[in-house]
Amino acid sequence: MGEHKRIGILTSGGDCAGLNAVIRAVVHHAVGNYNWDVLGIRNATLGLMQRPPQVMHLTPENTDGLLTMGGTILGTTNRGNPFAFPMPDGTERDRSNEIARGYHQLKLDALIGIGGDGSLAILRRLAQEGGINLIGIPKTIDNDVGATECSIGFDTAVNIATEALDRLHFTAASHSRVMILEVMGRDAGHIALNAGIAGGAHVILIPEISYKIANVCRKIRQRQDRGQNFSIVIVSEAVCTESGELVTKMEQFGESRLGGVGQYLAEQISHHSDAETRVTVLGHIQRGGISSPLDRLLASSFGVAAVDAISEGRYDRMVAWQNRQIVEVPIAEAIANYRAVNPQDTLVKTARGLGICLGD
Amino acid sequence: MGEHKRIGILTSGGDCAGLNAVIRAVVHHAVGNYNWDVLGIRNATLGLMQRPPQVMHLTPENTDGLLTMGGTILGTTNRGNPFAFPMPDGTERDRSNEIARGYHQLKLDALIGIGGDGSLAILRRLAQEGGINLIGIPKTIDNDVGATECSIGFDTAVNIATEALDRLHFTAASHSRVMILEVMGRDAGHIALNAGIAGGAHVILIPEISYKIANVCRKIRQRQDRGQNFSIVIVSEAVCTESGELVTKMEQFGESRLGGVGQYLAEQISHHSDAETRVTVLGHIQRGGISSPLDRLLASSFGVAAVDAISEGRYDRMVAWQNRQIVEVPIAEAIANYRAVNPQDTLVKTARGLGICLGD
Amino acid sequence: MGEHKRIGILTSGGDCAGLNAVIRAVVHHAVGNYNWDVLGIRNATLGLMQRPPQVMHLTPENTDGLLTMGGTILGTTNRGNPFAFPMPDGTERDRSNEIARGYHQLKLDALIGIGGDGSLAILRRLAQEGGINLIGIPKTIDNDVGATECSIGFDTAVNIATEALDRLHFTAASHSRVMILEVMGRDAGHIALNAGIAGGAHVILIPEISYKIANVCRKIRQRQDRGQNFSIVIVSEAVCTESGELVTKMEQFGESRLGGVGQYLAEQISHHSDAETRVTVLGHIQRGGISSPLDRLLASSFGVAAVDAISEGRYDRMVAWQNRQIVEVPIAEAIANYRAVNPQDTLVKTARGLGICLGD
Amino acid sequence: MGEHKRIGILTSGGDCAGLNAVIRAVVHHAVGNYNWDVLGIRNATLGLMQRPPQVMHLTPENTDGLLTMGGTILGTTNRGNPFAFPMPDGTERDRSNEIARGYHQLKLDALIGIGGDGSLAILRRLAQEGGINLIGIPKTIDNDVGATECSIGFDTAVNIATEALDRLHFTAASHSRVMILEVMGRDAGHIALNAGIAGGAHVILIPEISYKIANVCRKIRQRQDRGQNFSIVIVSEAVCTESGELVTKMEQFGESRLGGVGQYLAEQISHHSDAETRVTVLGHIQRGGISSPLDRLLASSFGVAAVDAISEGRYDRMVAWQNRQIVEVPIAEAIANYRAVNPQDTLVKTARGLGICLGD
Repeated sequence: MGEHKRIGILTSGGDCAGLNAVIRAVVHHAVGNYNWDVLGIRNATLGLMQRPPQVMHLTPENTDGLLTMGGTILGTTNRGNPFAFPMPDGTERDRSNEIARGYHQLKLDALIGIGGDGSLAILRRLAQEGGINLIGIPKTIDNDVGATECSIGFDTAVNIATEALDRLHFTAASHSRVMILEVMGRDAGHIALNAGIAGGAHVILIPEISYKIANVCRKIRQRQDRGQNFSIVIVSEAVCTESGELVTKMEQFGESRLGGVGQYLAEQISHHSDAETRVTVLGHIQRGGISSPLDRLLASSFGVAAVDAISEGRYDRMVAWQNRQIVEVPIAEAIANYRAVNPQDTLVKTARGLGICLGD
Repeated sequence: MGEHKRIGILTSGGDCAGLNAVIRAVVHHAVGNYNWDVLGIRNATLGLMQRPPQVMHLTPENTDGLLTMGGTILGTTNRGNPFAFPMPDGTERDRSNEIARGYHQLKLDALIGIGGDGSLAILRRLAQEGGINLIGIPKTIDNDVGATECSIGFDTAVNIATEALDRLHFTAASHSRVMILEVMGRDAGHIALNAGIAGGAHVILIPEISYKIANVCRKIRQRQDRGQNFSIVIVSEAVCTESGELVTKMEQFGESRLGGVGQYLAEQISHHSDAETRVTVLGHIQRGGISSPLDRLLASSFGVAAVDAISEGRYDRMVAWQNRQIVEVPIAEAIANYRAVNPQDTLVKTARGLGICLGD
Repeated sequence: MGEHKRIGILTSGGDCAGLNAVIRAVVHHAVGNYNWDVLGIRNATLGLMQRPPQVMHLTPENTDGLLTMGGTILGTTNRGNPFAFPMPDGTERDRSNEIARGYHQLKLDALIGIGGDGSLAILRRLAQEGGINLIGIPKTIDNDVGATECSIGFDTAVNIATEALDRLHFTAASHSRVMILEVMGRDAGHIALNAGIAGGAHVILIPEISYKIANVCRKIRQRQDRGQNFSIVIVSEAVCTESGELVTKMEQFGESRLGGVGQYLAEQISHHSDAETRVTVLGHIQRGGISSPLDRLLASSFGVAAVDAISEGRYDRMVAWQNRQIVEVPIAEAIANYRAVNPQDTLVKTARGLGICLGD
Repeated sequence: MGEHKRIGILTSGGDCAGLNAVIRAVVHHAVGNYNWDVLGIRNATLGLMQRPPQVMHLTPENTDGLLTMGGTILGTTNRGNPFAFPMPDGTERDRSNEIARGYHQLKLDALIGIGGDGSLAILRRLAQEGGINLIGIPKTIDNDVGATECSIGFDTAVNIATEALDRLHFTAASHSRVMILEVMGRDAGHIALNAGIAGGAHVILIPEISYKIANVCRKIRQRQDRGQNFSIVIVSEAVCTESGELVTKMEQFGESRLGGVGQYLAEQISHHSDAETRVTVLGHIQRGGISSPLDRLLASSFGVAAVDAISEGRYDRMVAWQNRQIVEVPIAEAIANYRAVNPQDTLVKTARGLGICLGD
């Protein structure tokens, strides 16, 4: 069973479904089977900067109810980049240094960091500069982390967005409207593409494929011509115009503009057609509540595998999911292979096969 | 089994869950048991204004799959007030007259009109002026029709709003945020009140109870003081300030303002406290998809009872739901007893008992 | 705010959705608003028989997460009838006496008892004989408690049974089968009747209406004749034959028989027709997991109202739900008006209107 | 766009979620993009044996609503093995011959066969002997088809079984019981293993891992010793005893025995421990209703890819899902690599890491 260890775990970046299930799995395996100590670090790396470091002792008892629960009992923050902000107490000390100091002060043998693309890159740099034994676990509703089929949180987000489309279908048809659903995915359109196919959308716009508004309006008109007097459009929170510009809420819209990309698109469609449009912004709801069964499986498997990697002394690695099996990859490899939607992906072909307009 | 009849049915106003289940029940009873003819009138009263009137023959076969389906296969419109708009063909003929003419041209013996408070009032006036034998069925996600415990669509809407709160809880707690959910209900706060209690909200703001922002912020602070670093706020799309003014998207906000009441409140909270806020506007999703079992029961019972009323020659009445039984009431009585949230209602007391802040 | 009190709460009989939400509401109101002490008694009346009585101190903190959670954190038992069993320690002392002694030993001012028809009758007798200030709260998935439109747990059970029917429809149609779903309800057929209508069943058999197998088979055959090669049957766990005998699993079936009423009916149908049948017994799943929003509302309102009754010194009463408002009724009245399905009930008429076969 | 084709599609074996979504995708791509004819063959191969063959013309219009719908509009049968039964008309003609004849009589250029392991093997033999251009699509809730990460129907089945476990947790804990859930999977335990992990089971028994009842009872007792007075057990409909015998309902239990493996296990547990047990048999409910988003994606992608394979003249192949991409494999390869649970699979390790008892 190997030597006794003391490990930490933190959750970083936006919350999503499955984080708590990872925590539970890590604790059940590390404490229940290996008899190690597990410290939960509060609010991502912020907890390691504070003095004393802010932690909670995790036990099978206080984590047993976490399997289905969304969010993270450890707390998280989007402002955790230690290379970009001052210390929590306002001083100008080197935050990255302080994080490593917190880790060593806690006498940790290893750290499990759950994060997306950006968080994993930061954690890796911290680990390398500060002598931290790091294992990464990929989470992001956007599913853009490389080297893994899925990250935690994606399946639940797709389920919620699909369910929203299922609901909008009926009201769209009843009122002869074009319903636009704006979902998350600033850099990668996986949620929109997956939910759009699963939810029977007629138009899917994502940042990876530049769109012409004329194509969108033609699709809507074609449907009208066949007596289908409504259309469902799903759109990522960033889209790409035919000139190759990325349009998002913050970069393009003046203060006087209402809303984000969904609203922008509604105005374009109204301008170029006689369709009546309505916009729904799914927002924070897609971060989940009860985790989907697949996210629970993924999270449980990641948690157990991360502990196994530590028990065998393998660090600087990320656990990944491929074909319903766990593999380990170097964190560097995962980061280097950021995954946007590729025009050759199966789902892009599936969308085209179904007659869905992708805007191009 | 009485004499043969020919009846029409139309759905009016915003769509909601359960409309199709009413249509199915009417047809199953009227055709299956009484052997009558049932015509479905398209797009509310618009279908009666067109020449020839726009209808579809309804049969048990073409309505059998409608039990669970949201929306309405007949179509509907929010622009159906014949006393306020020109004819569909642009002419200035008296629309109310044309509607009655359409009814008589179709040789209908009776008309089942499914609508909310406003629609039922209009339909009744049309019926009285035009010699239409009308039976009303109450539908509205706002549940503000008088004389009935529930209208069709309300239960499904509350379920969806509650589910959204369930999801927001986790992300609110993970990020130490105040999450604001804006739901429908311009004149009556039933959705917010019901979903707020069912979904564990800490603050519920509705148009019937005027709020002070200081009370809202005090509640948020009290929770923070007890270590509960997040709060859930649910708010109707209209709220009432302490000076008694009704604040809604259209009436109060200049064009340069982002969003509706949710956004307005977020700005107020940010101004009066240090809480980080996020707004979600539930929008059209709450009109439903799959109907809740209760809405299916209600809709099926209303449909059967409406046919029975016609078979016995009782008109100018609305079927209503009281204590899981159907009763009939004069439409005039239902309209006269518009039901907003009453401060003496059980649910208001329940909310206060649970320690929920209602803003007053 | 009145004088300080010390109250107990217990859950009795089979578990269901909403019990925990009552506990939460009682504690939030009694502790949060009145500053009373609330003791949770373990395992129904068994906790009061043990020495010392088995209780847990309930606080807003340890009950805050209970709103959505099914079951009861206090535990319950179906073997709690103190007039029928020996003491937990095996002695023959008078259990009813010991329960009252436990209550007084705990120095309770009042007891909130959550139970069904049977439990409330027992609790009332205990209260009267032992000087216990009792407030009753009705719970039962069977919805057979009188004087209240709904008891806690019923709405969730109907939702689950309806969802099961929704699922069985597709597999029935694909395989041209008669699918039989057996649901709970030994004495009252409310679950079968409500879920059967909401879930589009073609046959509903309940203990209150005696059935002829010939009628059931005729309905199946009529559907086949119209090209509808499948049927959905929902049946209570007890049914009544045309001779007026009640058939249930325990009373009628020898040991060599497989299963309960569902299986019995499948054999009858196979014997009298050429239909291929399959049986599903829903079982404990219908006791719920996540409570439905309506059960949460009901539970929260009951909990708050029970505390208010105690604060004003009204005892021997049950809180009830009528038209979405709370009323109080004497427990005796609720017990005396046990509510089975009445042939004049709206839902019976609705079922007949929809062409559903009720077996008679 | 290539030459015009006329293709058939059939669904074979037990129904599941996603079949209709495949049909829709095939038609949208083949008719909508390639302008081919698509014939839906009724009741698996039975439709090809009848004279004239029983088919329905499929169009984008009559398949558009199929995306979310469970089951199959084409019908299916479990008695479709042409090598084992007489002809539908009772004669002894060679059924396999007649199937090929039906195919050629319809002048089909290719046939898309959706089936599990067994159906695909039969279809392949028919294709080779009868000159049928076959493309296979894997479907089975058991997920035991080789060479594909998932088959259609599996994800929905796991979701439903997981949801059932979520519900049983509460009632188990409230009543201090051992709840046993029996799920499908006669030859492969994937549903039990996946749902068991996702649903927080404490014991998972599957046919691939032989169990000792002593181990199961020890796990239950260990939990009791820690104050966790309930346990959740999930079990496949076939299990393997320590002597290596497979125990299923039909092979092992005499007529006097109640029920299947779940009941068998309940009796064993009661015999070897003092735990109170309850059994739930999930049955046909797990075949699904509304398909999960993942099953809709899978089905849509399979349908489009099958049409593409035909358009490029590739036959005798099965489309498969690997890492969220479509690949094509020889049907022979898929059949040869029947996939049971392998003790080295990630999920077996995950289960052990979580402390779940697998019986060994």
